[in-house]
This record gives sequence, structure tokens and C-alpha cells, in this order.
Amino acid sequence: MEVTAELSITPVGAGLSFSDYIAECEKILKQNNLNIQLHAEGTNIEGDMETVLSAIQQCIASVHKLGAPRIITNVKINSRTDKNQSLNDKVRSVESKM
Amino acid sequence: MEVTAELSITPVGAGLSFSDYIAECEKILKQNNLNIQLHAEGTNIEGDMETVLSAIQQCIASVHKLGAPRIITNVKINSRTDKNQSLNDKVRSVESKM
Amino acid sequence: MEVTAELSITPVGAGLSFSDYIAECEKILKQNNLNIQLHAEGTNIEGDMETVLSAIQQCIASVHKLGAPRIITNVKINSRTDKNQSLNDKVRSVESKM
Amino acid sequence: MEVTAELSITPVGAGLSFSDYIAECEKILKQNNLNIQLHAEGTNIEGDMETVLSAIQQCIASVHKLGAPRIITNVKINSRTDKNQSLNDKVRSVESKM
Repeated sequence: MEVTAELSITPVGAGLSFSDYIAECEKILKQNNLNIQLHAEGTNIEGDMETVLSAIQQCIASVHKLGAPRIITNVKINSRTDKNQSLNDKVRSVESKM
Repeated sequence: MEVTAELSITPVGAGLSFSDYIAECEKILKQNNLNIQLHAEGTNIEGDMETVLSAIQQCIASVHKLGAPRIITNVKINSRTDKNQSLNDKVRSVESKM
Repeated sequence: MEVTAELSITPVGAGLSFSDYIAECEKILKQNNLNIQLHAEGTNIEGDMETVLSAIQQCIASVHKLGAPRIITNVKINSRTDKNQSLNDKVRSVESKM
Repeated sequence: MEVTAELSITPVGAGLSFSDYIAECEKILKQNNLNIQLHAEGTNIEGDMETVLSAIQQCIASVHKLGAPRIITNVKINSRTDKNQSLNDKVRSVESKM
């Protein structure tokens, strides 16, 4: 099933900056051929739900390996059966109302 | 990898009450042999990360089948490599400080 | 406006255990006369939205003072105009379907 | 206290499209002189925490008035005492590692 999703990771016990860990996750998401859009509070993703969740598991494993002993990972999954809607469609839809 | 997690689903386009859909997810989580704790804002889960995420995908598919054309699913995953901590451990740890 | 809410804080740069900080927030929420239910992945709250959000700001300030240089705070607010629903109502509603 | 935040609203009982409601919240956030960045899964905000939370309350009230009987609102607050970091700083910090 095609979904849009959002990933936000909080590595704990590995310093105050998260950017190295987020960059690692970007790399993994791209290696999984997912379309992604990085923003200041997370990474938006579009793709097949199974692929998205599998890539997120790889990201968590990798961030632990890079040195974070604890990670809080928040995932939001947006699924709909009435129509397909891409990440860009969603932004355009709001902007057309403003 | 063993994790604790939290699942919160918001079915859209299927009425104002979510309880039928949440009850369906509880059933699915239990069928996957996961330990769960229902609370007012979601369901806490403990188990293997892969099993947890697979069960959540089954839950989303099932809630769509029950009639929700759109679902916003929020998943929080708590993973740590320094020690194992169960759902009950986490509550006890806070209560011991109060 | 009466709401149910959920608070989850992730203190960063202050050790791997969050329980001292969560216990501090419980104390502050109670001092604000809010009904709360601690669970393994957060604290559920019921009360007036303005009071809830004001208490959460006090909690964040206090956790910084206790030593956390960075905090990720997640708040979920459940508001409805069709009926009042308490935290206990929500759990009972699901349990009646199981 | 200056924070970065993310707002995501899910109106329930008001159709499958959220864009009218999100556009209304954008307007309110701007009227409160907050810097915002719309993306596909929410709106990032930077500003004083009290102003941010007050604007979010106005947004919730307004979305109810526009016709949504139930709203699930997710707010993420990023606060730090070690340094100031803008929304743009956060994205640049990750991009410099990629």
C-alpha cells in the first residue's frame, strides 16, 4: 500500500546534535529508493508502507551502531484508500487555499 | 530487537467514535502475541520491533477494510541497547520517584 | 475548552533515564489540579486546554532547570464539540467492544 | 523561551480533505507573527513558546468553528538552553553532513 509518512528520531545519550544521525537515515531511506523531503522537524517519505517501515528499522539499527544507546522514533503514517496523494500534492492542496 | 512502542490511530471518514477500530487493532496485536496495555490515548506494546511493525500494518489494513477511507497512524518506538526495559519497568521507575 | 491530552517528554543530554524528569512533570501537573494517568509511554491528562498547555510549559521550564539542555516534547490534544469524553470513558468505550 | 515546533492537525467528521483547515491555521499562525514553514505532514513554527501555544489554541477553536466536531492535534516542541537554533539552521546542519 502506497503511503506518505514522516520520520522523526531523537537519539539520546549521544550528544545534543542530531544531524549526523539524521544524515545517516536520509542515506538509508534513499538507498531504499524512497522519495524523501527533509524539513526542520523530520523527514517526509512517500512509498510502499512495507518498504518505508523496513527502511526505518534499518535507520534505527544504524543510529544505534553509530553510538546512540537510546532512540525515541516517531513515525506518522498517512494511508488512504479513496485516492493517491503525493507529498507535493498535499502541500499544493493547502497552498491553493491560502 | 526488543522495543516498547505506542500506537495511536485516527480513522477519518468513518464517524466520530474510534473505539470499534481500536478494538480491532487490539485483537490483531494480541493475535501477534504482543503484550499490550490499552490507555486513553493509545495502546502501548512490547515485543520484537519487526513483529510490532508487521502487526501495525495488519491493523491499518484491517481498519481500512472496516470502512475508514483515511487513517492517520502515529507510532512511537522506544529502543535501547544499554538495557532491556519493559512497559511495567518504565511506570515503576517513575512511580518510585514520586 | 475541556480536552484530553497526552504529554511525552524526551530530555536530551541528561542521561539515559527519564524518570526523574517525568516525576517532576507529574508533580507540576497535579499542582495545576489536572487529572492525570501515567502510563509507560507518556502521561494522559484531562482538563481545560489553557490550563493543560500552561502546565506543560511549566514542566518544560522545570526539566531544563533540573539539568536537561534539550527537550523534545510531544503533546497530543483531543478536542471535541459533539460531547464530553473523559479519559476513563475512552478506555471503557474500547473495552466494551472487545 | 524561543522554540521550534511542529503542528499537525487531524480534523475528524469534516470530510477527507484537511487543506481548508490547515490553510486556516496558517493564517492564524501568521497573524500571530510567527515564522512558519508548511510541509506535507505539518507546519513547522519558530517563535516564543507562549505565543506558539496560544496560536495553536486559536487554530483549534477556529477549526471547530469551521465545522470539525473532533480534532486530534499533535504538537512537537523543541526547546534547548545550550543554543538558539532556527528552523533553517536545523535543515542546514543535516544537509552539511550529507
